[in-house]
Amino acid sequence: MDRVPVAVVGASGYTGAELLRLLLSHPQVVIAGLYGRRAAGERLAAVFPQFAGRLDLPIEAFSADEVARRAQVAFCALPHGESSPIVRDLYTRGLTVLDLSADLRLRDPATYETWYGRAADPLAQQAAYGLPELAGHPLRGQRLFAVPGCYPTAALLVLAPLVRAGLVEPAGLIVDAKSGVSGAGRAPTAGTHFSEVGEGVHAYQVAAAHRHTPEIEQELGASSVVFTPHLVPMSRGILATCYAQPTDPERPGAAYREALAQFYRERPLVTVVDAPPDTAHVRGSNRAHVFAALDPRARRVIAMCALDNLGKGAAGQAVQCMNLALGFPETAGLDAVGMFP
Amino acid sequence: MDRVPVAVVGASGYTGAELLRLLLSHPQVVIAGLYGRRAAGERLAAVFPQFAGRLDLPIEAFSADEVARRAQVAFCALPHGESSPIVRDLYTRGLTVLDLSADLRLRDPATYETWYGRAADPLAQQAAYGLPELAGHPLRGQRLFAVPGCYPTAALLVLAPLVRAGLVEPAGLIVDAKSGVSGAGRAPTAGTHFSEVGEGVHAYQVAAAHRHTPEIEQELGASSVVFTPHLVPMSRGILATCYAQPTDPERPGAAYREALAQFYRERPLVTVVDAPPDTAHVRGSNRAHVFAALDPRARRVIAMCALDNLGKGAAGQAVQCMNLALGFPETAGLDAVGMFP
Amino acid sequence: MDRVPVAVVGASGYTGAELLRLLLSHPQVVIAGLYGRRAAGERLAAVFPQFAGRLDLPIEAFSADEVARRAQVAFCALPHGESSPIVRDLYTRGLTVLDLSADLRLRDPATYETWYGRAADPLAQQAAYGLPELAGHPLRGQRLFAVPGCYPTAALLVLAPLVRAGLVEPAGLIVDAKSGVSGAGRAPTAGTHFSEVGEGVHAYQVAAAHRHTPEIEQELGASSVVFTPHLVPMSRGILATCYAQPTDPERPGAAYREALAQFYRERPLVTVVDAPPDTAHVRGSNRAHVFAALDPRARRVIAMCALDNLGKGAAGQAVQCMNLALGFPETAGLDAVGMFP
Amino acid sequence: MDRVPVAVVGASGYTGAELLRLLLSHPQVVIAGLYGRRAAGERLAAVFPQFAGRLDLPIEAFSADEVARRAQVAFCALPHGESSPIVRDLYTRGLTVLDLSADLRLRDPATYETWYGRAADPLAQQAAYGLPELAGHPLRGQRLFAVPGCYPTAALLVLAPLVRAGLVEPAGLIVDAKSGVSGAGRAPTAGTHFSEVGEGVHAYQVAAAHRHTPEIEQELGASSVVFTPHLVPMSRGILATCYAQPTDPERPGAAYREALAQFYRERPLVTVVDAPPDTAHVRGSNRAHVFAALDPRARRVIAMCALDNLGKGAAGQAVQCMNLALGFPETAGLDAVGMFP
Repeated sequence: MDRVPVAVVGASGYTGAELLRLLLSHPQVVIAGLYGRRAAGERLAAVFPQFAGRLDLPIEAFSADEVARRAQVAFCALPHGESSPIVRDLYTRGLTVLDLSADLRLRDPATYETWYGRAADPLAQQAAYGLPELAGHPLRGQRLFAVPGCYPTAALLVLAPLVRAGLVEPAGLIVDAKSGVSGAGRAPTAGTHFSEVGEGVHAYQVAAAHRHTPEIEQELGASSVVFTPHLVPMSRGILATCYAQPTDPERPGAAYREALAQFYRERPLVTVVDAPPDTAHVRGSNRAHVFAALDPRARRVIAMCALDNLGKGAAGQAVQCMNLALGFPETAGLDAVGMFP
Repeated sequence: MDRVPVAVVGASGYTGAELLRLLLSHPQVVIAGLYGRRAAGERLAAVFPQFAGRLDLPIEAFSADEVARRAQVAFCALPHGESSPIVRDLYTRGLTVLDLSADLRLRDPATYETWYGRAADPLAQQAAYGLPELAGHPLRGQRLFAVPGCYPTAALLVLAPLVRAGLVEPAGLIVDAKSGVSGAGRAPTAGTHFSEVGEGVHAYQVAAAHRHTPEIEQELGASSVVFTPHLVPMSRGILATCYAQPTDPERPGAAYREALAQFYRERPLVTVVDAPPDTAHVRGSNRAHVFAALDPRARRVIAMCALDNLGKGAAGQAVQCMNLALGFPETAGLDAVGMFP
Repeated sequence: MDRVPVAVVGASGYTGAELLRLLLSHPQVVIAGLYGRRAAGERLAAVFPQFAGRLDLPIEAFSADEVARRAQVAFCALPHGESSPIVRDLYTRGLTVLDLSADLRLRDPATYETWYGRAADPLAQQAAYGLPELAGHPLRGQRLFAVPGCYPTAALLVLAPLVRAGLVEPAGLIVDAKSGVSGAGRAPTAGTHFSEVGEGVHAYQVAAAHRHTPEIEQELGASSVVFTPHLVPMSRGILATCYAQPTDPERPGAAYREALAQFYRERPLVTVVDAPPDTAHVRGSNRAHVFAALDPRARRVIAMCALDNLGKGAAGQAVQCMNLALGFPETAGLDAVGMFP
Repeated sequence: MDRVPVAVVGASGYTGAELLRLLLSHPQVVIAGLYGRRAAGERLAAVFPQFAGRLDLPIEAFSADEVARRAQVAFCALPHGESSPIVRDLYTRGLTVLDLSADLRLRDPATYETWYGRAADPLAQQAAYGLPELAGHPLRGQRLFAVPGCYPTAALLVLAPLVRAGLVEPAGLIVDAKSGVSGAGRAPTAGTHFSEVGEGVHAYQVAAAHRHTPEIEQELGASSVVFTPHLVPMSRGILATCYAQPTDPERPGAAYREALAQFYRERPLVTVVDAPPDTAHVRGSNRAHVFAALDPRARRVIAMCALDNLGKGAAGQAVQCMNLALGFPETAGLDAVGMFP
C-alpha cells in the first residue's frame, strides 16, 4: 500500500517536532512537507538538531495550494488565533486536517467569545473534538478535528467515564493539574526561564482564569469546574488530580476503578493502573494512565490521569485521530513504550 | 549576654543539617554537641561536606546525661517512634526540648493509636504544638514542643485563619500538596532514587493514607480533610493548594486575602502575596508565602501556602519555637531571604 | 519471515527495560522471555509500570536450558562478575549472546586482573568488541559480543577516527566525561539519591580509578589516557569532552571535522555536527553526535561525543550488534529520533 | 558603630538579588538604595518576590549624584560595556566601587580590544583584580575593584597556587568547566529556556571563543589556556576540572594537595577537600572547595574547584572585597554554610 503523504504546518515548535518524531516511525504515512513562519528557509536539523542525519528537509513558507498539491493530510500546530484561517484553507481544498490549536474546540460561539475575547470561527461546528476514547461515534472518514490540549485530555480521560456512568456528580468538580514546562511552548519567556522554574512549583491562572476550563466543562456536560494548573520543574508530563463527589456515598471504592476498567477495556492507549500514576511512566508515549480511589473518611473520589503533554496531550493524539479517520490501526506509529527513566 | 548552649540529636539527617546551618548563624546560641546513631564517631564534615572549614565537631553517641551537662536546649530530629523516649530523658533533666518527630503531635491518644498503630506517649499532653503563628497563647517559658512537619504547617498556615474567622466551612476541605524530595529524608530508597523521581510527578499515600491528615484536622478542628501529597522533582519546597467552601457564597473574593493579611499583620515570618506563591521564593528561608482567591464561577475558595519543608516546615520552625520560649527575638537567626534562584 | 525469538536476562534493571522498549518496536524479533533474579516471579508491569497495557509477561528465574529452548538470541544485562558464567551457558548452547557487562571486554587477561581484581574469563578471547562503527571486519555471523558501556563508546566514537587517521597523538589524551544518573543503575544508593545529586555536579573515581579507562586504551591503542567521569543532574546522557595533541600543529582546524565526516559517511547512526553536541538531542535514540574543533591559540584538538547512555551506550548498541550479526538492516528497531524536549 | 550605607546598581538581575540577600544579613552595612534601568519605578518585591515582607524598597533610575549622596559604597552589577562609565561616575565622586562587570578586569588594553572588540577603559589601570585570596598585597583602602566572574575565580583558585609554587607548568593548561544556568543571567533566551537545557549537557563557545580565557591567562601568567565551558541543568554552581603537567613527573601526588593546604591555611573562605568537590556543597555560600590529585599513570595533575557562581563567583566575592577594603572582618556577612540539600 502506498504511504499517505502528510504535511506539518508549524514545524518549528515543540508540538511540530513531536509530530515529526511520531510520523517518521509511522508505517503508513510519509512526510511530504514542513511549513513554518519564523523558521521558513531553514533546514529542519538547524532548528531541531535531533533530526540531524535522520530527516533532512527544509522548512518552507506556508502555501495552501502547495500543501494541497503534496499532501492528503495536514497537521496544524499553530498558535491560537492564527490557526483557523489556515485550517479552513486546507480543509476546503479537500485535505484531512488535524488542528492542534484551540480555535475550533468550543462548540458554543458565545462561550468561545467570552474566554478568548474574539469571534468564534463557524468552522468549529464542523470539527470533531479529537479525543477518540470519548467520541460517541466512529471517526472514520471525518475530515476535520479540533484536537484537544493536554490539560483537558488529562482531566477528561479520567472524569468523563465516572460522570457518564453516573458515579460522580457533574457539579463541584475540582481539577488540580501539574504540568511540565514544554506545554508553554518553545518561545523563551520569564515564566519558562530555567533559573526561574527550576527547583520550584507554583500555580498560575488561578480561579477561573485558564482557557482550558470551558473545554473541560463542555465535554463533561458540567458547569463551574475548578481548574488549577501548576508548573512543575520537568519538561514533559501532565498529572491531573481530580476531586469529585460520589453520587452514592455508600458505594464501595472499588466501583470507581472498575468503571474505568470497563470503559477502557477495548481501548489500546489508556491503561487503568492500581497505584497513583506517574508522568514519568508515560513520557514520550501516547498512553494515558488513569486511576481512581475513594477517600473512605471524606467520601470523596480522587481520580488521576498521567500523560505526556506533547504525546497523548497533543501530537500523539492528533496522529491517533488521523489513524481512525483514515482507517489505519488505531495504534499505528503510537505503540512506543514510555521512555523511563 | 552569654550564648545559650544547644545540642542537636539526630545530626546526620537533612533536618539535623538544616538545624546546624541555622544555629551557626544564630546570634544567641552556641552549638554544644552533635549526636547521632549511625554516624556516631564521624566528623560532621565527613557526613555533610558543606560544613568543611566552618564547623569541625564530631558526631557522638547519644547520652542524656552528657547532653544535659553541656546544653540547655536540645533539638531532636529523630525518626518517629524513636524520638519520644529520648525527648523524655532530656525533658526530665530540665532541658528545653524541641521534638521534630510526630511522636507528641497528636493530643488524642486514640487518634494517635489509630494512625500510628502503637500506644501514644502520655508526654504528648505536656507538649505545645510548635506552630507559633497559630498558638493561642504566649510560648515564653514553654519547655516542650512538638514541632509540626512540613505538610501540616503549609496547610494550617493558610487554612486556619480562614476557618477561625468563619470564612470557610471546616467540612469538605481538600489539601492537594506538592513536596520536594528532601522531605523523605536522607536514606536512599527506590522512591527517592534520582532516575525514578526526576522528570516526573506523582501522588502517594492517597485517600486517607498519609499520617499527617489527623494533625491537620486536630489543629483546624475539622474532620475528614482530604489530603493528597505529591512528589515533585526538586529538593526543597512544599506547596499546599487548598480548596474550601465559603460560608457565604456572596462574599467578595478580596475578603479572603484581607483575612489573611489581618491575621498575619504582626507576624514577621508569614507574608501574604498577591500572586500564586512559588516555593522557589522561600527556599532556604523560614518564611511562608500565603495566598487566597475566590473562583467566581464555582464559588470555591482556593488558598495556597508555599514554604521550605526543611525550613519553616522543620528546622526553622523549631528554632522559631526556641526563640519564643527563651525570649529571644522571634526572627533571631531566621531572617535570611529565600535563596532565589 | 518469522520473527527471531529473543530473551532478556536481567530484565529488572534500566538497561533491561531499555532493551525491552527497543525490542518491542523491532520488526524482526519477538520477545520470548524475561529473566531476573530479585524480581523473579513478578509481572513486568509491576517492576516497570511503563509496560502496563503493552507487554504483559512474567519475569522468570534464569534457566539456561529454558532460555535455549525458547530463544535464539540472548541479551545479558547483568552486573559485572555475575555475567560471564551465564553468557557461557547460553553461548555453548548455540545462542547468539550480547553481553552488556564488562566481563569479556578486555582482551588482555593481565589488564583485566589488574583493574577488576579477579581472574579474566578466557571466553573474552572469543568475544567481539561490540562497537560496530569501529569494528574492522563484518560482524555477520558473530555469536558472542562484549558490548561496551557508555563511557568508552562516547570516547571511542570521536577519538578513534582521529587517532587511526594519524591526526592526533595517541599519547596524552584526556577524556572529561559528564554522565546522567541512570548510568549508575536502579539500585538506590547515597550517590544516586535525588536530594544528593540534584542541583549539583561533581567528579568521581578521579585519577586512574575508573575501570572504563583500560577499555578506552585498548581500543585506541593508546596508553595512559586520563579519564575523569562526572555526574550531572539528569537521568540520561553522556557527553565526552576530549582533548588531544594534533600530530601536525599547523594542520587547519577543518581537517578534524572532515576526518570524522569521512569516517562516518556510510554509517547511519553517527552524525557529525557543526555545533558542540547536546545529550538532549540524542535522548532515547541510538544515535551519537560527534564534533571536533581546533583551539587555534593552544593548538589543541577538542573533540566531543554525545549519546544516550542507555541507548547507543548500552541497549541500543547491543541491538545494533544483533542486527549486524543476524543480517538485519543495521538500523532495524533503532531509527527513532531523539526525544527532545 | 554606624553601619556603612551601600547602594546596588543593577538590582534587577540575579547578581543584584544575591548582593541584596547577602548585604541584608551583613552586620556592618545598611542598604541605602537600589538602582536599575528596566525595573526602575518598581518595588523590589515585585521584581524578586523572595524579598516580600523583608525588604521593601523601590528600584530607582540611576543618578550618580543621588547614589553619592546616600552611599559610601556602590556595587555595580551591570552588563559588560555599560558598566565602566557608571563606575567612573561613582569612583570620581569618592565612593568605593565594586564593579562586577568585565569592563575593568584586563590590564592590557590590547588584549581587551582583541577579545571585546572595543577600546579598553583606562580606568582599568586603577582597579584591583578582586580575587582576595590571590592578591599579593593588602586590599585595605583600595577604592576600585574589578571583581572577577565565576569561571576565572574557579579556575584561578585551584590553579594559581600550583603554578605559583612551580608545581605545574603554566603552559598546556586545560580548564573544563561546568556551570549552572543562572550564570547566563535573568533575560530569557533560547539557551536558557527550561525545556532546552533541562535533562541535557553541552559545551558552548568552544576553542578559544569565551572571553573569560584571557582573564585566566592574565592572572596565571600563562598563555594559551584551553577553556571549555559547559552548561549543566542546575541553577547555581561552577565546577572547574583542570588538567596540568607537573614540573616534576616523579613528585608524589600528595604534594599538590599539600600545596593547596599551605596556600589557603589562613584563608577562611577556601577549603581544601579530600574528595572531588561538589557544587551542591557550596550552594548559596561564599566558600570554594578545592582539590588536587595526580593521575599516577598519565602523570597529569587533575585539580578542581567548586563554588557558587552567584556567591564566591560574583556577589559574595564583591562583598568580601568590600570587607577587606573597609577593614571589616573578611567573612562579615559571608559565613553562611552551603545550603545542602
